[in-house]
Amino acid sequence: MFEQLGLIGCGLMGGSFALALKRAGLVRRVVGYSKSPSTTARALQMGVIDVEAPSALLAVSGADLVLLAVPVAATENTLKAIRHLLDPRMLIMDVGSTKRDVVDAARRVLKNDVGLFVPAHPITGREVSGVENADPSLYAGRQVILTPIERTHPANVDRAEALWRALGCDVQRMSPEAHDAAFAAVSHLPHLIAFALVNGVMGQPEGEQFLSLAGPGFRDFSRIAASDPQLWRDVLIANREELARQTELFKHALGDFERLIAEGRADELERLINRASHARANWRLTPGPR
Amino acid sequence: MFEQLGLIGCGLMGGSFALALKRAGLVRRVVGYSKSPSTTARALQMGVIDVEAPSALLAVSGADLVLLAVPVAATENTLKAIRHLLDPRMLIMDVGSTKRDVVDAARRVLKNDVGLFVPAHPITGREVSGVENADPSLYAGRQVILTPIERTHPANVDRAEALWRALGCDVQRMSPEAHDAAFAAVSHLPHLIAFALVNGVMGQPEGEQFLSLAGPGFRDFSRIAASDPQLWRDVLIANREELARQTELFKHALGDFERLIAEGRADELERLINRASHARANWRLTPGPR
Repeated sequence: MFEQLGLIGCGLMGGSFALALKRAGLVRRVVGYSKSPSTTARALQMGVIDVEAPSALLAVSGADLVLLAVPVAATENTLKAIRHLLDPRMLIMDVGSTKRDVVDAARRVLKNDVGLFVPAHPITGREVSGVENADPSLYAGRQVILTPIERTHPANVDRAEALWRALGCDVQRMSPEAHDAAFAAVSHLPHLIAFALVNGVMGQPEGEQFLSLAGPGFRDFSRIAASDPQLWRDVLIANREELARQTELFKHALGDFERLIAEGRADELERLINRASHARANWRLTPGPR
Repeated sequence: MFEQLGLIGCGLMGGSFALALKRAGLVRRVVGYSKSPSTTARALQMGVIDVEAPSALLAVSGADLVLLAVPVAATENTLKAIRHLLDPRMLIMDVGSTKRDVVDAARRVLKNDVGLFVPAHPITGREVSGVENADPSLYAGRQVILTPIERTHPANVDRAEALWRALGCDVQRMSPEAHDAAFAAVSHLPHLIAFALVNGVMGQPEGEQFLSLAGPGFRDFSRIAASDPQLWRDVLIANREELARQTELFKHALGDFERLIAEGRADELERLINRASHARANWRLTPGPR
C-alpha cells in the first residue's frame, strides 16, 4: 500500500496506472502533473488524479511512489526536474519501451539516488493515446520487465515486483541491454515495418483504393501502424543500434524469400514459409489475456 | 437457388462455402471431391458435402454450380480434369487470392467455355486450414472481388454477384490486373513480410526467448505468418511481378525511415510516422464485420 503516487505524465499509460492502483486499493492519493494543463484538468475531472500539481517537482513532493509516464526522450529532463525532492523511502519507476537510454539518463541525473529508480517496461499499449483512453485494466494479465542495475536497491526492486504483481502482471527481470535487444526484434522492428508498409502503399497514386480493398489480415498486421507518433519517434531513435541490427536480419530474411519467389523455387519457398508458419502457430502470448 | 454444387477442394474455403450455401438455403445438394480421401470422408461426416465424388470430373457431373477451392497453382489441372463435363447452364467460380494466373489458365483450358467461369476472390481466411475448421460465417460481411474478362457471360457474372450477396458479402468487379496489383500491396506483401520477420527473429540464437517476450502488438502483426504454407507458396509465386514491385516500394519506404533514425532526425521521423499513423487510424475494414 502506498500513501501517495506522484504521477508525471497523465496520458494513456500513466492514467491507466493510477486507475489500476486505485481500483486495487494500493494507493491513498494521486498527485498528478502533465505538461499540458488540459490533460491534467481532464485527469482530475475523470478521477485519475486527486490533486493537480503545478510542476513535476511538486508532484513528487511527499510521494512514496513516483511514476514517470512520459515519452522516453523526456526522461532525462523529467528526472532533472524532480531530483531535488527525492526521498530515500521513494520507489521511482518509469514505463518506457526502451531501457538502456533510460538507465543511462537515471545514472547521469540521479547519481547517488539512482538506487531508488527501478526501470520498468509493461508490455501493453493501445493505438489510442491520451488520458481519455485510460483504462484500469490496461496492465492486467500483461508482462512487465524490470531492468535493475547493480546499484538499484534490491528492496525497491522487490517492492516494484510486488506492486506489478498486485496489478495482475507477470514480472521478469533482465538487463537493460537484453531488454533492448529483445524488444528491437519483437516490438520496435514490427512497428517500423508497419509504418513503412502503410507509407509505401499510401505513396502510390492508387494507394487509397488499394487500402479500401484490404481485409482482416491487413487490419491486424497494420494495427500498430496507428500508434502514437511522438512516442515511437523516441523509441526508434533511443534503440537505434539494436533496431538497425534487427532490421538487417529482417532484410536478409526477406531477401531469401525474394530470391526463391523470383526464381519460382516452390519447394524451398514452401519450406521457408513453413518455418515461419510453424513458429507463429506455436507461439502464445505470455501470460495470456485474462 | 442451385440444384447441385460441385465442390472441388473441401478445405477451409470450400467447406465454409458449402456450409454457408446450405445455411442460406441456396443449394439442394453438395457433391464434393478432395485430393485427400480423408478430407472428403471428414467433409461427408460433418455434413459439409452430401455425396463423395471419386474424381473432380464426377463432382462436376450434373452440377449447376461448381466451386474450385484448390491452391491457385492447381487451378489449371483442375480445369483440365473437369472440362469434358461442362454444361452451358453451369456457373463455375474459384476463390483464389490471385486472378491473372487463374484467368490465364481458364482461357487456355476452357477455350470456348471460358464464359462460364467467373473468377472470384473472397477477402477472408483464417490461420487454420482444413475442413475441420470450415465455418458457415467465414464469408459473411466480407468483400468479394469478381474479375470477369470480356468473354465471361454477363448473366453468369450477375448470378455470381447475387450468390455472394446472398451470403452477406459486398461484391466488387475489377480487372484481374487491377486485382493483383491491389492485393500484392495489401495482402501478399504483408504476408511475405510477416513470414520474413518471424524467420528473421527465429534465425537468432535468442530467437525463442525474444518471442516469449512479445506482446499484443506482435500477436496481431504476426498473425498472418501462421497462414497455410502451400496456399501462400502458390500465391507469392503466382503474383510475383506485382509482389516484387510492391516489395521494392516497401523497401524504399523502410529505407527512408532507417536514414532518419540513424541520423537521429527526430522531427522528420515523427512526420513520417505521423503519415502512417494517420492513414491507418482513418482506415476501416470495408464493409466491416457483422
